[in-house]
Amino acid sequence: MPKQTPRTLSGFMELLPAPQQQMERIQKILRETYSLYGFTPLDTPAIEASEVLLAKGGGETEKQIYRFQKGDADLSLRFDLTVPLAKYVALHYNDLTFPFRRYQIGKVYRGERAQRGRFREFYQADIDIIGDGKLSILNEAEIPAIIYKTFSALGLKRFCIRVNNRKILNGFYAMLGLSQQAGDIMRTVDKLDKIGPEKVRGILQDELSISPENAGEILSFIAAKYDLDALDLPLSQYRGRNELLDQGLQELDTVVKHLADFGVPRENFAVDLTIARGLDYYTGTVYETTLLDHPEIGSVCSGGRYDNLAEYYTDKQLPGVGISIGLTRLFYVLGEQGLLNPDLPTAPADVLILPMTEDLSPAIAFATELRENGIRAQLHCEAKKFKQKISYADKLKIPYAVFLGEDEIKEGLVTCKDMTTGEQTKLDPKATIYRIKAGLDARNQGSVIRE
Amino acid sequence: MPKQTPRTLSGFMELLPAPQQQMERIQKILRETYSLYGFTPLDTPAIEASEVLLAKGGGETEKQIYRFQKGDADLSLRFDLTVPLAKYVALHYNDLTFPFRRYQIGKVYRGERAQRGRFREFYQADIDIIGDGKLSILNEAEIPAIIYKTFSALGLKRFCIRVNNRKILNGFYAMLGLSQQAGDIMRTVDKLDKIGPEKVRGILQDELSISPENAGEILSFIAAKYDLDALDLPLSQYRGRNELLDQGLQELDTVVKHLADFGVPRENFAVDLTIARGLDYYTGTVYETTLLDHPEIGSVCSGGRYDNLAEYYTDKQLPGVGISIGLTRLFYVLGEQGLLNPDLPTAPADVLILPMTEDLSPAIAFATELRENGIRAQLHCEAKKFKQKISYADKLKIPYAVFLGEDEIKEGLVTCKDMTTGEQTKLDPKATIYRIKAGLDARNQGSVIRE
Repeated sequence: MPKQTPRTLSGFMELLPAPQQQMERIQKILRETYSLYGFTPLDTPAIEASEVLLAKGGGETEKQIYRFQKGDADLSLRFDLTVPLAKYVALHYNDLTFPFRRYQIGKVYRGERAQRGRFREFYQADIDIIGDGKLSILNEAEIPAIIYKTFSALGLKRFCIRVNNRKILNGFYAMLGLSQQAGDIMRTVDKLDKIGPEKVRGILQDELSISPENAGEILSFIAAKYDLDALDLPLSQYRGRNELLDQGLQELDTVVKHLADFGVPRENFAVDLTIARGLDYYTGTVYETTLLDHPEIGSVCSGGRYDNLAEYYTDKQLPGVGISIGLTRLFYVLGEQGLLNPDLPTAPADVLILPMTEDLSPAIAFATELRENGIRAQLHCEAKKFKQKISYADKLKIPYAVFLGEDEIKEGLVTCKDMTTGEQTKLDPKATIYRIKAGLDARNQGSVIRE
Repeated sequence: MPKQTPRTLSGFMELLPAPQQQMERIQKILRETYSLYGFTPLDTPAIEASEVLLAKGGGETEKQIYRFQKGDADLSLRFDLTVPLAKYVALHYNDLTFPFRRYQIGKVYRGERAQRGRFREFYQADIDIIGDGKLSILNEAEIPAIIYKTFSALGLKRFCIRVNNRKILNGFYAMLGLSQQAGDIMRTVDKLDKIGPEKVRGILQDELSISPENAGEILSFIAAKYDLDALDLPLSQYRGRNELLDQGLQELDTVVKHLADFGVPRENFAVDLTIARGLDYYTGTVYETTLLDHPEIGSVCSGGRYDNLAEYYTDKQLPGVGISIGLTRLFYVLGEQGLLNPDLPTAPADVLILPMTEDLSPAIAFATELRENGIRAQLHCEAKKFKQKISYADKLKIPYAVFLGEDEIKEGLVTCKDMTTGEQTKLDPKATIYRIKAGLDARNQGSVIRE
């Protein structure tokens, strides 16, 4: 028969079993952490009607969207989890209780140009808190705590949650009479880290025709360091000059003031006035999270406050705040940087049982006992040589091999080999299970990410 | 602004938060049970190149497939998890260790005619064991044990795992000289439960031109009850007359013989010679699982042994055995039949904390303590009346509400209300946590499915 060469589409992550185990571990930690903060899991279709998904229309993502006909239907694959959330909340408004806190970990699709480390199918891991009409600023203050807990649970220590407030930016540019150009200015200012202040000044003056005075004002403003102790900016000179700016500064003060309450250490937090995020969506606090030793990766967890989640679907005012982790890309980068802890178990099983007698019942009985103790057990019943079976455990890094021969069965004992140390014991089943459990506990110490 | 009416495509399941929690619980149980048997989780793309996914070509599913162009690429959404597994194993053959045991829980897509209880996007939950060249019959014997454990873990008791062997059928029809018509005969015989033996006889004779003698033979053969004690069929008369039939009977004997070893109770198992499953794929043991009180649902977990998983991609002989649960449909049916246990918690949080003072730090500190104890805690900081906050906990069925007023903070105590009983305690934080934990443990008793 002629064969079709098997392949996986470029831009689509497909992991081997061992890294997949690491990915599963990360997803489990995210689910658990998000749950501890009272977010409920949600799962929405990957396909939506194009008219619904693209109600907002336009935008640079539009040509990246996987859109197609099926029968009469014009369908699209979701490109993020926010638009489906907006649809969900508008559609099920009467069945939901607000504030509505949900998390969702799911695949989204963007037909980007194929590129190393860029994915066309990738997981996003989002949380959002949606209010009905109003939503307290304290939710914005809680978000850094959730980011902190999430990354700490994964094992990261050297990361910084950077916060800004869009009202500060919008108020500041309004004050300078530059509201019209605010978008272009923010895009330019966003490059500060990469190109330096003088090039930013050049672009502002030459390309955006900003006056030298205003360019200077902008540069000194965004360079300002927020004093976390004084709860203020050295920019207190700006207070009282623009209402929106004042409001933004006050919100920022509130977020910062509660940081310690929420348990976010000083070293994992910074106010950064260069952060703007999306231009027409966020309206209050905005967040970015960077790995201190890998600034080149950019933000691994971003989001912010928005005033109107579902304006394309409903008249209801639904303000919210949310963050998103680009999980597939994060996983890829962590792997590339060698930050995934290789010592955590990735085997498909904890114990490989080698029955050495015709009668399988003692082996199966022991496998059952192991499983009842939460130990993952696999029977190896293939017609292979002993050496091959041991090599199977070895290759898969299964930590324990158990032998049940006639002697063991007669004596009611179990021979168990620690595949790492080579140490072999012959103990009764209970003692063997105790030993295996202790060993697995030790092996499961340590975090997924190891800096 | 003109609004786009939000809607979810028909045939796409989108659950409200409470049922979603039940669905998550089921998926968690499946993941854990499959893992205990040494299956490793896998995740493959939802989109594949059409030429790869449809290498096998044709079939009745082809027009159901979501197939589309993106740029130059001809793409299709996966319609099951088996073809992607075949591709995966062929593609990564050199990196895998055999027997390769994997589970996968993922969405698949079929553009079926919209119909109540039929889904176009649905979860399948599959396990497969793939051998390299050979695979022991004992894997086929283990599968009923895994099905039994899985459904038991979900809480089902009244179900039956029905088993047959394709070699028995193929051998039997070869013996009668009916190999050519075997497919049509099996399709007819499959209707036995629905239309009864006399109508089956009619179709066999009139439409398939089977002689009355052969029709009689077929009907008496498939009606035969396997004697689980004697490890035999009353059909021992057929032994020794066709090699394939003999081999099938012997394999069936082996599977049955190990049932008790593998811990499958007699009442959850039956040999059923009418089961054939797919016509050109399975080659040995085949499985179906039916709910005794809901035979109309059909099989909720099916599968079987196949000799060549990836013949469209590779020359390697890769025999395997696997089963699949149509999870979305199963969930839908369980809900319809009222079999989902409503007493298990579905709230987004275990505890709602109502801070009653300006200073939030005591409330946040207690939330942190709860979370460190694995208790899901949400702070309610909205500017709402006390009554509204209590009603929030009530509506979401959050089991405990915690009040932290000035008195409590001064005394170092916590007021905690059990939202079910109304009972209110004022205890120190540790005692409160102890009480909440005990209460949650009690609430989490019981299984997802309650017959």
